[in-house]
Amino acid sequence: MQLNNATPEELMSWEKSLSDEYESIKAENLNLDLTRGKPSAEQLSLSDGLDGILNGEFTSPSGIDTRNYGGLRGIPEARELGAKLLEIPADNIIAGGNSSLTLMYHCVMTAYLFGLNGAESAWKNEDKIKFLCPVPGYDRHFSVCEQFNIEMIPVDMNDHGPNMAVVEDLLKNDTSIKGMWCVPKYSNPTGIVYSDEVVDRIAALGKIASKNFRVFWDNAYAVHDLGSSPAKLANLFDACSKHDTSDSVIQFASTSKITCAGAGVAFIGASENNLAAIQKSLSFLTIGPDKINQLRHAKFFTGKDSLFLHMQKHAQIIKPRFDTVLSQLESEFSGSDLGSWQSANGGYFISFDTRPGLAKQVVSLAGEAGVKLTPAGATYPYGNDPEDRNIRIAPTVPTVEQVEKAMNVFVLCVKLASVRQAINNQ
Amino acid sequence: MQLNNATPEELMSWEKSLSDEYESIKAENLNLDLTRGKPSAEQLSLSDGLDGILNGEFTSPSGIDTRNYGGLRGIPEARELGAKLLEIPADNIIAGGNSSLTLMYHCVMTAYLFGLNGAESAWKNEDKIKFLCPVPGYDRHFSVCEQFNIEMIPVDMNDHGPNMAVVEDLLKNDTSIKGMWCVPKYSNPTGIVYSDEVVDRIAALGKIASKNFRVFWDNAYAVHDLGSSPAKLANLFDACSKHDTSDSVIQFASTSKITCAGAGVAFIGASENNLAAIQKSLSFLTIGPDKINQLRHAKFFTGKDSLFLHMQKHAQIIKPRFDTVLSQLESEFSGSDLGSWQSANGGYFISFDTRPGLAKQVVSLAGEAGVKLTPAGATYPYGNDPEDRNIRIAPTVPTVEQVEKAMNVFVLCVKLASVRQAINNQ
Repeated sequence: MQLNNATPEELMSWEKSLSDEYESIKAENLNLDLTRGKPSAEQLSLSDGLDGILNGEFTSPSGIDTRNYGGLRGIPEARELGAKLLEIPADNIIAGGNSSLTLMYHCVMTAYLFGLNGAESAWKNEDKIKFLCPVPGYDRHFSVCEQFNIEMIPVDMNDHGPNMAVVEDLLKNDTSIKGMWCVPKYSNPTGIVYSDEVVDRIAALGKIASKNFRVFWDNAYAVHDLGSSPAKLANLFDACSKHDTSDSVIQFASTSKITCAGAGVAFIGASENNLAAIQKSLSFLTIGPDKINQLRHAKFFTGKDSLFLHMQKHAQIIKPRFDTVLSQLESEFSGSDLGSWQSANGGYFISFDTRPGLAKQVVSLAGEAGVKLTPAGATYPYGNDPEDRNIRIAPTVPTVEQVEKAMNVFVLCVKLASVRQAINNQ
Repeated sequence: MQLNNATPEELMSWEKSLSDEYESIKAENLNLDLTRGKPSAEQLSLSDGLDGILNGEFTSPSGIDTRNYGGLRGIPEARELGAKLLEIPADNIIAGGNSSLTLMYHCVMTAYLFGLNGAESAWKNEDKIKFLCPVPGYDRHFSVCEQFNIEMIPVDMNDHGPNMAVVEDLLKNDTSIKGMWCVPKYSNPTGIVYSDEVVDRIAALGKIASKNFRVFWDNAYAVHDLGSSPAKLANLFDACSKHDTSDSVIQFASTSKITCAGAGVAFIGASENNLAAIQKSLSFLTIGPDKINQLRHAKFFTGKDSLFLHMQKHAQIIKPRFDTVLSQLESEFSGSDLGSWQSANGGYFISFDTRPGLAKQVVSLAGEAGVKLTPAGATYPYGNDPEDRNIRIAPTVPTVEQVEKAMNVFVLCVKLASVRQAINNQ
């Protein structure tokens, strides 16, 4: 389908047949959901062996009774697991509780209220704090900024990551910019992997930004490869060492989408300066993380390739769902002027861009036809997608058949909204 | 030993023999520790059955797949456990992660930054915020205040709880007082249980305090009875209903000293208004607590009396340690003018008051003789015990023999410091 060259008659004819199809689908009273970026029960079952794995042995190989209080940085064995995920030394890891979002929030809160370089460095001391937010991005990152009244500046993503020329320019000219969110591998929602050059330029930001600037590097999908040739993300930690900017980034990861989504282990990776400041701040609010669960995870991933093999099992379960989404987009929209998308090689989402001004309309049409989609705009700061184009598709929870059916509806809604818009614009 | 009536000769003679004894104990190079308010390994082993208890069944009786994201208030079965601990309805409970300290911190942070009655109620909007701190008390409560720059006003405890006349007077005359810490049952460190009258007067504080005032009711030792006749704490929740002050208190509990100290479940108990505000604030920093661990705990305490019977086992382990401390204090200091203490019927501590100006000296002498004691002053805001009297004794971790030996040293150090002071004051 090509709308730009269509005649008014063609448009009217398409509208008629698409409307008919839409009405008949509505009559089916579907109840499908492509909103939830969470693992399916089948995926979660891969890790059922965690409970009981300790077999009565609660002392870690490093000699810690994991049942008792203490150990703000987590047990060494869990820090090793975090080191494997983030590819940085275990000495630079804090293994925490069940949520990397909590750790990110805590780091923002610490930087804001108490300062990561002593009390005088606290962001609250300044009139205005801003964050750079590559878009489309992760709504929960944006919510943290909103809660701390941090102004968000959207920066467009291209196929290699955030537009770094824009990022560098903004940082040079605005000292109130104190942070930047990044999901560097299989970015939420586009699936983009930051290129080596982008990673290197992000590492170099510490040289042009203020001392209180931090990149919040949320490597949520570090090992969440879907294809046979996993993307290789350049090592930010090493790049920062090279540029002497190690304090300018804080990295995050978790096993939420590796083992259990609510009962995993989350990690911070950072320079010793940052870790010390974060640990001090943590010491006011906890005696320590759940070390028993950390030990479970360390034991679960003991073998050399166990993590890799485990992630392959995830891929076997969810890749058919991604393939279903992509093949429908390909067969219906390839070569058309109705939308564009990125072919994700990993992560949890596929991101689709409609023609300008149609995302809300498509989400609404799909909803009325029984297919729930993430609210349009959710992938932008303040829920404001200025072109109203981006829709995040999350296919992991439904079955392949449900994804197939839901995508039928999605495709139809995109076509219907696009044709109606073209008619109105005539 | 009575110092007030002793002759100079008696004092010199005592000093000589106590010094000799002290030097010979020092030569033993002891390494004992009465600082740690945490369970012993033997106690922790009582809950080893938690790991693996789910036997592959991760769906709660209420139908929730505990392995996945979600559920900010926790699973119903865990909320029931919290309800049992706090003796308030499960509807008024949030079951959280592994730390009640984290929940308390979160509530203070929410009240401070974002407000528990909407943004305009945030404490940060006011010039000065103060908390009432019954003393001696729990150092980590005081640390939370320090981090948020909340001024702490110490209020003396008597045998029935905080001196309520002072509390009420302060609240009437100072609207900047926004909070009050309480450990109402087996108070840390004195072991005092708040009397029914004190509980009722605390419930009534909401009538004289500002709308933004909250009692932080840390019921850490709700079921931690040692004697055969457990103390009965009056029900604050009911008292608040009666006084129509339900929004003026937030209650806390956890299983840290019931099951595992680092891997338990913590609870908030509060009015729906408070819970809604807390839940909203939680939604920015977590997708939900570790529900698998919540389900483990709910299953572990399924039987009607299982919690009570479990706590009896704890008591069997730790009561002999408490008895050892108390019998030595009794035999050495009863009827003397060297110190006073409370006979704790539960909880984790025994609190000893030296003659004024000697607590630091006693802790230092004991330390030199190989017996580690909690730093003097730790039980007061800003680490400042104005009379330098209070010492917190934590006997749960050492064996009975170690407690016996450590208390020999403690008693000796109290006597030696007291006699030397009396000589200096002649």
